[in-house]
Amino acid sequence: MNIIEIISKKRDRENLNKEEIEYFIKEYTNGNITDYQAAALVMAIYINGMNDEEITNLTLAMAHSGEMLDLSAFGKNVVDKHSTGGVGDKVTLILAPIIASFGIPVAKMSGRGLGFTGGTIDKLESIPGYCTDISIEEFIENVKNIGISLIGQTLNLAPADKKIYALRDTIACTDSIPLIASSIMSKKIAAGANKIVLDVTCGSGAFMQNYEDAKKLSETMNKIGKLAGKETVCVLTNMEEPLGYAIGNNLEVIEAVEFLKQDMPEDVKQVVLELGAYMIKLAGFGENIEENKQKILEKIKTKEAYEKLLQLVENQGGDTSYLENTDKFAKAKYILEVKAKQDGYIYSIDARKVGELSGKLGAGRLRKEDPIDETVGIVLNKKVSDFVKQGEVLAYVHANDENQASSAVKKLQEIYKIQENKIEKPKAILGVIL
Amino acid sequence: MNIIEIISKKRDRENLNKEEIEYFIKEYTNGNITDYQAAALVMAIYINGMNDEEITNLTLAMAHSGEMLDLSAFGKNVVDKHSTGGVGDKVTLILAPIIASFGIPVAKMSGRGLGFTGGTIDKLESIPGYCTDISIEEFIENVKNIGISLIGQTLNLAPADKKIYALRDTIACTDSIPLIASSIMSKKIAAGANKIVLDVTCGSGAFMQNYEDAKKLSETMNKIGKLAGKETVCVLTNMEEPLGYAIGNNLEVIEAVEFLKQDMPEDVKQVVLELGAYMIKLAGFGENIEENKQKILEKIKTKEAYEKLLQLVENQGGDTSYLENTDKFAKAKYILEVKAKQDGYIYSIDARKVGELSGKLGAGRLRKEDPIDETVGIVLNKKVSDFVKQGEVLAYVHANDENQASSAVKKLQEIYKIQENKIEKPKAILGVIL
Repeated sequence: MNIIEIISKKRDRENLNKEEIEYFIKEYTNGNITDYQAAALVMAIYINGMNDEEITNLTLAMAHSGEMLDLSAFGKNVVDKHSTGGVGDKVTLILAPIIASFGIPVAKMSGRGLGFTGGTIDKLESIPGYCTDISIEEFIENVKNIGISLIGQTLNLAPADKKIYALRDTIACTDSIPLIASSIMSKKIAAGANKIVLDVTCGSGAFMQNYEDAKKLSETMNKIGKLAGKETVCVLTNMEEPLGYAIGNNLEVIEAVEFLKQDMPEDVKQVVLELGAYMIKLAGFGENIEENKQKILEKIKTKEAYEKLLQLVENQGGDTSYLENTDKFAKAKYILEVKAKQDGYIYSIDARKVGELSGKLGAGRLRKEDPIDETVGIVLNKKVSDFVKQGEVLAYVHANDENQASSAVKKLQEIYKIQENKIEKPKAILGVIL
Repeated sequence: MNIIEIISKKRDRENLNKEEIEYFIKEYTNGNITDYQAAALVMAIYINGMNDEEITNLTLAMAHSGEMLDLSAFGKNVVDKHSTGGVGDKVTLILAPIIASFGIPVAKMSGRGLGFTGGTIDKLESIPGYCTDISIEEFIENVKNIGISLIGQTLNLAPADKKIYALRDTIACTDSIPLIASSIMSKKIAAGANKIVLDVTCGSGAFMQNYEDAKKLSETMNKIGKLAGKETVCVLTNMEEPLGYAIGNNLEVIEAVEFLKQDMPEDVKQVVLELGAYMIKLAGFGENIEENKQKILEKIKTKEAYEKLLQLVENQGGDTSYLENTDKFAKAKYILEVKAKQDGYIYSIDARKVGELSGKLGAGRLRKEDPIDETVGIVLNKKVSDFVKQGEVLAYVHANDENQASSAVKKLQEIYKIQENKIEKPKAILGVIL
């Protein structure tokens, strides 16, 4: 077996077998296969595709290419949740304590974010004292003790995926369903999940811009799950406008905390309930989705979910007084109002543009080494379908640079599209692929 | 313009325009585009193809990527000849002096060979004293004085082609007609040719294994020639069995010299006449192909072509006494007979296998730095369609290692396929594509 033969086969639209895929992943991770050989193979995969068996073998080979998180101590129904990414996506911060409040173990290792804002780990770090860098032993111990732990990616999970992901970016091979699906699933499997609920975002702020592609990606991931013995459910969610109101690091933490105190934006609520209900089902804690949703609302109402968040933060060294009083969070120097220039109904708040704007304000990073500014971002005051009067506040810009702040205000005025005619509130949940 | 956009276009089966192709070639040559980006683009070209205009633009961009040999001093009809490679191919050694004997300038820069045997330059160097490494000024001066000069590649011709060629080898993208055609034509154009006669070999010992592919390649190269304003004729020649009898460096020089002394193997003769007749036509020295062939035979008969070879060798410092008496050439230590194991008609002498065997004996090299052994090789005694008696000599192995020699004898006995039924002499010329 050699890489030239493997490239030739995919080039000629033949299927690669398990051994060939494993050989490629192993030797590419080791550095015995060069980047240009991998690039040629990835392009051939992009153009000629892969069948479900190939995609599954690719996923498993990438999952096993580095360290694997062993969560077997928590039984066979370890559920994980993952989002394909969006703008204002604070769902993990909300869902993790909810799920843990059911007694379902939550042992979650998250990466740092690139792009619009930081990732879940960056957001958690805006709680003073919260430690994301703890040993695996302590991590497992935490879950055993209090049922939940959220930490940074301290293990070298799926290094093959990291290499291929970085390569794809430079060779115009990002938007390939086999490659996206195997990348996501390999990370989840390496992170120890047996059951996976995927939030497949769809719209301007998401990787999948339209419903058809999101559905195709979901079906592919479900098939990988089936073939790999990891039950998978995909929930297609709307990412045309940002999710919820807050975009930015500590701004999103505040929104998540307030959510658990029953201040629930409608779209976030729907997404949390749908994903949570399927997580509970997969964990074996309730077959009926609608009943599960009611149970989640109950956990919020009784403050059990909020208490679980306090317990998590305290257990990892965080200052819980920030959660009790979210006004304590550091604030940006400039908080400017964005006002409507006309009366009317808001029909579009392009999520991607809002995300890019947040990134420019300093909420995101382009390289892993870059710092992020936890205070900056955008807080929407009005969402799509809302009616506004001229001069009413559409949103707030949180910035630490005066010029950036006023420039962001102007841009947001353009991003908010207003029309005379009434418009329906967009659906938060576009579908569920089982 | 950036490389990711260019890759995306070809990935999506769009045509690349002149500027995009020139940008890629320039920036890849400069090192601003990485090997993995080039690999992805080359794979996309392999799978999705290129139209004639794209191939021509690629050819011209590669031709202009480094130094260009300026042969304008010799007018507008500078003819060059090139072969796509084969086993026992000593045609340039024979044709160059023939063409020069007509008063047509022959200014030829050749590379060293990789593979079965050395290239034309390696072969010429087996004539003691022959200097292949002279300055461009002296080279041009030589052609002005005696009408002919053959030297090594002292200019950095088509460096982009060299990079892409080396890359293709490692990513399973060698056998792509757009890439092969542009590679060949770019080198010829950089080497100063205005008119090009191509010997497109076809068969087991050639790059193109079958007639259809060879024809397709020829048509593509003709179109490039047309679009680039370099008139091109392709002669499809048979490379199922080795060309002529000798395979090896000085063994082929000897066969070439003897050819010019009228000892002409039939297949070599046909190839020399066909290619030569078109070169004469393109140079404007004779419209009628059959008449041109007769003129070539006349130049051989009158020894004018042989005299031109003597003049060339003398002018570049070579010892012409070796040509006058080819017995003077160094000989391998072991010359073993390969005997027929049965009576019958020879129906196959696989050229590739004979070539590989010669390479193993030391006639070829795998890396540019490697030395070659000019004495070793194989001299056939019988060719396809010949009748042999059991025990009759099929071929001679020339080797400097005893074990290699006897192993080569056994292998040749297997390579020679003998049957009871008579077989037609194979055609040397398979077609001409104008």
